[in-house]
Amino acid sequence: MIAIAGVGLIGGSFALAVRKAGYAGKIVGVSSPAAIQAAIARGAIDEGMPLAEAAARADLIYLAQPIERILATIGEIDQYVRPGTLITDAGSTKRAIVERAYQKIQRGRFVGGHPMAGKEARGVEAADADLFRGRPYVLTSPDEELETWIAKIGARLVRMDADAHDRRAAVVSHLPQLLSTALAPMVEDSAAMAGPAAVDMTRLALSSYDIWRDILATNPMEIDAALAGYIERLQELRASLPDLQDEFERAAQAARRLREST
Amino acid sequence: MIAIAGVGLIGGSFALAVRKAGYAGKIVGVSSPAAIQAAIARGAIDEGMPLAEAAARADLIYLAQPIERILATIGEIDQYVRPGTLITDAGSTKRAIVERAYQKIQRGRFVGGHPMAGKEARGVEAADADLFRGRPYVLTSPDEELETWIAKIGARLVRMDADAHDRRAAVVSHLPQLLSTALAPMVEDSAAMAGPAAVDMTRLALSSYDIWRDILATNPMEIDAALAGYIERLQELRASLPDLQDEFERAAQAARRLREST
Repeated sequence: MIAIAGVGLIGGSFALAVRKAGYAGKIVGVSSPAAIQAAIARGAIDEGMPLAEAAARADLIYLAQPIERILATIGEIDQYVRPGTLITDAGSTKRAIVERAYQKIQRGRFVGGHPMAGKEARGVEAADADLFRGRPYVLTSPDEELETWIAKIGARLVRMDADAHDRRAAVVSHLPQLLSTALAPMVEDSAAMAGPAAVDMTRLALSSYDIWRDILATNPMEIDAALAGYIERLQELRASLPDLQDEFERAAQAARRLREST
Repeated sequence: MIAIAGVGLIGGSFALAVRKAGYAGKIVGVSSPAAIQAAIARGAIDEGMPLAEAAARADLIYLAQPIERILATIGEIDQYVRPGTLITDAGSTKRAIVERAYQKIQRGRFVGGHPMAGKEARGVEAADADLFRGRPYVLTSPDEELETWIAKIGARLVRMDADAHDRRAAVVSHLPQLLSTALAPMVEDSAAMAGPAAVDMTRLALSSYDIWRDILATNPMEIDAALAGYIERLQELRASLPDLQDEFERAAQAARRLREST
């Protein structure tokens, strides 16, 4: 049996993906009644179950809740599980979660995870069996069983400890978000003149704070360092104005390489 | 007769747009032999003509070259034109061009323009009669005849003097470009973990320096001021970390308003 705590976009997609990959056992959800109902309707889970019962019966427990809920679940789940039960999560930051699991999970076997996948739509209604296909999937420690699942759902395994994950996520994910958040109010004043560039660069600014509250709260030092490093780069650009040929060529090359590798 | 100097994406699109709007006169191009051939093949112009002859015969002269070429053309065109001939341009910065025109154009009637339209593809092959439709079109001084053309091609007239244009363009267009240029090399190091956010925010970094050289060279002070203002905003975000709820809500609202007005 597989238990999914938090059957939204990611939890629901993981359920659909393992089902598509041939998993024939039961898949249960641990979530609010409304979310359980939606996840059953979507065909993602077979039924809902309280955490204690689901944890006691599951061979794999997948925590796909918001980060603060993952931290809370980690705080209580160990008492319910059978020894050696695989527990993993899909939280967007890893250090706080892995540290909490290190303190709180002894009977279970915890492996931190972060599937680098998503879409703008939220909720289990948008869940997709192919959401992880071809996308990076970070694990913070090796685990043969979980790595087999990741291969089966078509994701690309990336091994990285929690510190390295949070440092890099600050640069590739949290920094872009904050750049867009900082830009949007500036361009609004000249909205009449705004073109595709401004629209493009303020798309992330539409993000809901619901998701970002926990990310910011659990990775503030690395985010601050990424912002400081970025400000330094902007100061270098200012110092080089108006001749930015080298910077443009280097950036275009980096952007092309990024597209080849994603 | 209408003369288009520089029959690339913008010049070609203007030619197609006025033709579609019912202009029955001759449209000639002033450009390299290869560009003229391509523009004729695309159906954008009737024929090519040297600048002196085109300027002498045209009722409307449309300068859609790179900014430095526009400046050069403005330096020599006045001797050829009949008194009162309408001359306008489509350059992405306005102060340098309008200042040069103020010094150099006495017989002709110069009005600075900037159609806020474009697409990733370049060249007359990508020209489109509807490129300007619904898009802002800045004019730096009033002109009844040109305003009529702008209405006919479906663009949205925005009146703004050259200084205001360049100050605002620095924020809504030049700043977003440089933010992407600064970001791309930083995210490249962690490309394996990059998701849609990083890809989104580095799209502009793919821009060719060919276009940006002239923009940077003719608007360095306003761009520097925009970068300085943006750095200040990033420092404010850093100081507020990890609680950015107000900033996220303000930014999301600005981004939504921007989308309503573009």
